[in-house]
Amino acid sequence: MTKIGFIGLGIMGGPMAANLVKAGFDVTGYNRSSVKIARLVEAGGRGADSVADAVRDADVVVTMLPDSPDVEAVVLGEDGVLAHAKPGTLLIDCSTIRPDVSRQIASRARAVDAPVSGGEQGAIEGSLSIMVGGAAEDFAAARPVLEAVGSTVVHVGAAGAGQTVKAANQLIVAGTIELVAESLVFLEAHDVDTGAAIEVLSGGLAGNRILDRKAAAMVRREFTPGFRVELHHKDLGIVQAAAREAGVVLPLGAVVAQLMASLKAQGHGGLDHGALLKLVDQLSGRE
Amino acid sequence: MTKIGFIGLGIMGGPMAANLVKAGFDVTGYNRSSVKIARLVEAGGRGADSVADAVRDADVVVTMLPDSPDVEAVVLGEDGVLAHAKPGTLLIDCSTIRPDVSRQIASRARAVDAPVSGGEQGAIEGSLSIMVGGAAEDFAAARPVLEAVGSTVVHVGAAGAGQTVKAANQLIVAGTIELVAESLVFLEAHDVDTGAAIEVLSGGLAGNRILDRKAAAMVRREFTPGFRVELHHKDLGIVQAAAREAGVVLPLGAVVAQLMASLKAQGHGGLDHGALLKLVDQLSGRE
Amino acid sequence: MTKIGFIGLGIMGGPMAANLVKAGFDVTGYNRSSVKIARLVEAGGRGADSVADAVRDADVVVTMLPDSPDVEAVVLGEDGVLAHAKPGTLLIDCSTIRPDVSRQIASRARAVDAPVSGGEQGAIEGSLSIMVGGAAEDFAAARPVLEAVGSTVVHVGAAGAGQTVKAANQLIVAGTIELVAESLVFLEAHDVDTGAAIEVLSGGLAGNRILDRKAAAMVRREFTPGFRVELHHKDLGIVQAAAREAGVVLPLGAVVAQLMASLKAQGHGGLDHGALLKLVDQLSGRE
Amino acid sequence: MTKIGFIGLGIMGGPMAANLVKAGFDVTGYNRSSVKIARLVEAGGRGADSVADAVRDADVVVTMLPDSPDVEAVVLGEDGVLAHAKPGTLLIDCSTIRPDVSRQIASRARAVDAPVSGGEQGAIEGSLSIMVGGAAEDFAAARPVLEAVGSTVVHVGAAGAGQTVKAANQLIVAGTIELVAESLVFLEAHDVDTGAAIEVLSGGLAGNRILDRKAAAMVRREFTPGFRVELHHKDLGIVQAAAREAGVVLPLGAVVAQLMASLKAQGHGGLDHGALLKLVDQLSGRE
Repeated sequence: MTKIGFIGLGIMGGPMAANLVKAGFDVTGYNRSSVKIARLVEAGGRGADSVADAVRDADVVVTMLPDSPDVEAVVLGEDGVLAHAKPGTLLIDCSTIRPDVSRQIASRARAVDAPVSGGEQGAIEGSLSIMVGGAAEDFAAARPVLEAVGSTVVHVGAAGAGQTVKAANQLIVAGTIELVAESLVFLEAHDVDTGAAIEVLSGGLAGNRILDRKAAAMVRREFTPGFRVELHHKDLGIVQAAAREAGVVLPLGAVVAQLMASLKAQGHGGLDHGALLKLVDQLSGRE
Repeated sequence: MTKIGFIGLGIMGGPMAANLVKAGFDVTGYNRSSVKIARLVEAGGRGADSVADAVRDADVVVTMLPDSPDVEAVVLGEDGVLAHAKPGTLLIDCSTIRPDVSRQIASRARAVDAPVSGGEQGAIEGSLSIMVGGAAEDFAAARPVLEAVGSTVVHVGAAGAGQTVKAANQLIVAGTIELVAESLVFLEAHDVDTGAAIEVLSGGLAGNRILDRKAAAMVRREFTPGFRVELHHKDLGIVQAAAREAGVVLPLGAVVAQLMASLKAQGHGGLDHGALLKLVDQLSGRE
Repeated sequence: MTKIGFIGLGIMGGPMAANLVKAGFDVTGYNRSSVKIARLVEAGGRGADSVADAVRDADVVVTMLPDSPDVEAVVLGEDGVLAHAKPGTLLIDCSTIRPDVSRQIASRARAVDAPVSGGEQGAIEGSLSIMVGGAAEDFAAARPVLEAVGSTVVHVGAAGAGQTVKAANQLIVAGTIELVAESLVFLEAHDVDTGAAIEVLSGGLAGNRILDRKAAAMVRREFTPGFRVELHHKDLGIVQAAAREAGVVLPLGAVVAQLMASLKAQGHGGLDHGALLKLVDQLSGRE
Repeated sequence: MTKIGFIGLGIMGGPMAANLVKAGFDVTGYNRSSVKIARLVEAGGRGADSVADAVRDADVVVTMLPDSPDVEAVVLGEDGVLAHAKPGTLLIDCSTIRPDVSRQIASRARAVDAPVSGGEQGAIEGSLSIMVGGAAEDFAAARPVLEAVGSTVVHVGAAGAGQTVKAANQLIVAGTIELVAESLVFLEAHDVDTGAAIEVLSGGLAGNRILDRKAAAMVRREFTPGFRVELHHKDLGIVQAAAREAGVVLPLGAVVAQLMASLKAQGHGGLDHGALLKLVDQLSGRE
């Protein structure tokens, strides 16, 4: 039975680890908060006292952490994964971080970057979409693990490529939320029935996942996360840096990054990213 | 058997009229080009020599024309629909035009505005998404006709509301094409496999109809229309005028309208709107 | 002595008419509000009871009105300037309006379009910058009148060209105010002494009239007009329509037009256009 | 006589060092290219073989280098300024770099950051505008040196503040060039005489240094630097990073940064920044 060390048992990592247990893996988890560890134990996993403890006997280590510095500390740090895992252990990093950090890790260990899309709901259902960068044989080795937590698992290129595709994902998601927000405020200002409009828009070329899953809550001005503005702001920072580095011009990407930054600057970093609609309301004098 | 007069047998109107024939309606069609009329006759309809001839005995008149001035001329003009149709004839205008023109027509006749989304393929398949503005009883009367050409037929509000929703549709479609274009160029610049990326992006929160239907052709730089840049440019003009009038601010909408205008100004008005990717290529020095 | 009929004695027109009196012209003024007429009489001019009365004996008619429909009504209307002025009277329209309206007037009368820049202060001081469109001989005839109210009087092209240059002027002014606003908020957020910064910025390549005349009031958040947001919003509408018509893409112009529209939508149409800084404060969470 | 060590004798640094010689300072200069050193010797200065040699006996060290990494290497590096200058030597860094690098240097040495505006012409004429960050007593000590190369020398705040004001300067300059570019293309598209328009625009509220110094060359499509696109692109990167860090939203700043990035991506990094007009031409189909 494959032994998995799992670091980071938060909103996303917790249900992912539980799904690995369900799929028959021997999972030992670690998190700074012991409450999260206890929850994994209830779900049938084991708890560890430290990163070292979690990875020492593992065949595969999965990490699911908030940002690049967290991954650098946990993976490359003094008491980190590389310091304590057996030689040849496969590292699967599901965090959304800077591509260059993923490449740096891959240069020092057997590793794939495997960021996910689909949110808390996708993590619980095991229906995440997972974009994987790394060597073909490492992808092959990682696949059975990833298929236990996601329904779409695709190898998109060399180390870092998973992060690059995730960056594109975050660009499209932020932009689509903003387009839907602009449309909904536009329709309300013209006294159109937004419920009927969402239905008919979904049926044509304008159809998208944001209309399907988030537009109704946006119309109700419900912005409980879900995915937080401050995390999406961080991700759009990665998009912009990567675009600048590669000489790619992003006319809409640059604008939506400013809008997300404004939400955060106005103290809404803890709201769901659907709160981009709040900003269209504000700019249009409709608050 | 309901008698339908159908004006405008082009790329969209031609297959729509044919689908009405298939559904058992008695359709008499008129178009300035007689070739288009001949095609309807082949499909089992009748041909007319003039607008007057097409609408004289009709219970329902359907119009499918390029722009506001065309509809004003054909419907309100001296030898137009209102001058020759029987009192009480129901007018269904499927053109995408300015909402105020739709409201003006509705103030002078029994009429609904019923613009469609779904493109030539949707017109042929009878799977269009149709957004209808007008009185409830007129929508009820129009419904059986519209259900013969579309699979999603929704009443969204009073006269003009169909056009307002269509405007929102065109805003989302243009914006989504641009977001996909920016993402594809971004991915290519980072040497990522775009085919794999499109697959995995489609599976998550970034999923949309443009990724499903147009992204592959965009990657191949194939821009045969489909829906032409110059028509989408016209539609974004309607969006902007309606937003300005209602005091709604569209940060992404304003930018994508400039990009579409640039394509047209550069002589690409006849290409498919997926050509927004050409502009990202150009701006990023990748042509 | 040249007889001048002057229509529109508001914030700008009032002091301009008074300057014409000072320069020795025989000025008969009309305004809907009789208080404004009384002020001209105090300054040594004559009052009229109607447009007809003001223009009947005039050699030159000057109009200074808020918007295109006002000019159309006053000049082309039933009881307007053209109906009552002597044949050959020279019409000098100083209003900021759509270029096509200026061209229409020039096609029906001997007329130049002569919009001004410099604000209330420039009107009082007679130091306006005036951009004149029309035939060379009409410009020559208008020049002595215009030099009594402005210090820079330039013939920029055929009928309508004055309006086109004024549109460009309004684009640069709005954009520069916004650039200064972004810079000031940026400097405050970094705890820089803005007074010292304004001084040093003015001395280099960044130097401009907005830094010289408006930045200090903007830092104090004083937005008493001056030139009102709602008028600048109207003017940016003219800019955008003219750009669209000519196929010119305005990346900054489109964005600043949205920002001005937002100020108006938020109920700040009556503030000075320097209030663009309010919006940067708002977007940056610094209100 | 104050002894000055001067590192960086390029387009800007060369004439600045020569002006210091003229003002009576004892200047020893170093540059990687010995041709530049020879030119300083001709102007009456001394040449050095290394950074160490240039700064060993200096009372004041002036640095004028292209980018943050250059300053870090030359000032903080193993064989750099701090390693070889006497204790208490005043460091005046005139380079345009990241504010945090200036603060880091000020934490390790007696230093002011003193970036300049005014271009090659201002450097030759000694008419630069200089924005100085640092302690009051260090500014007082630097002032006589800076007044030999600039005509506006202002203390704007603590260490790093000079760079922050320079960032704002670069934002306004880039934005103003773009506004002038959009206006000129707009005027040409409407067949207006741009020479006359520049004159009249300069006289009103739209007046700015770009209209005065660069617009005529832009109309002639002459883009010989001057100040290169690739340097301005670097500076706008500093602006954006500093704005993001401080939570300041820059709607125009973000757009003009994309446009400058596009010029560089299209291979125009070596042109003068006035080449933003090329991009407006391109987007408007007027090349």
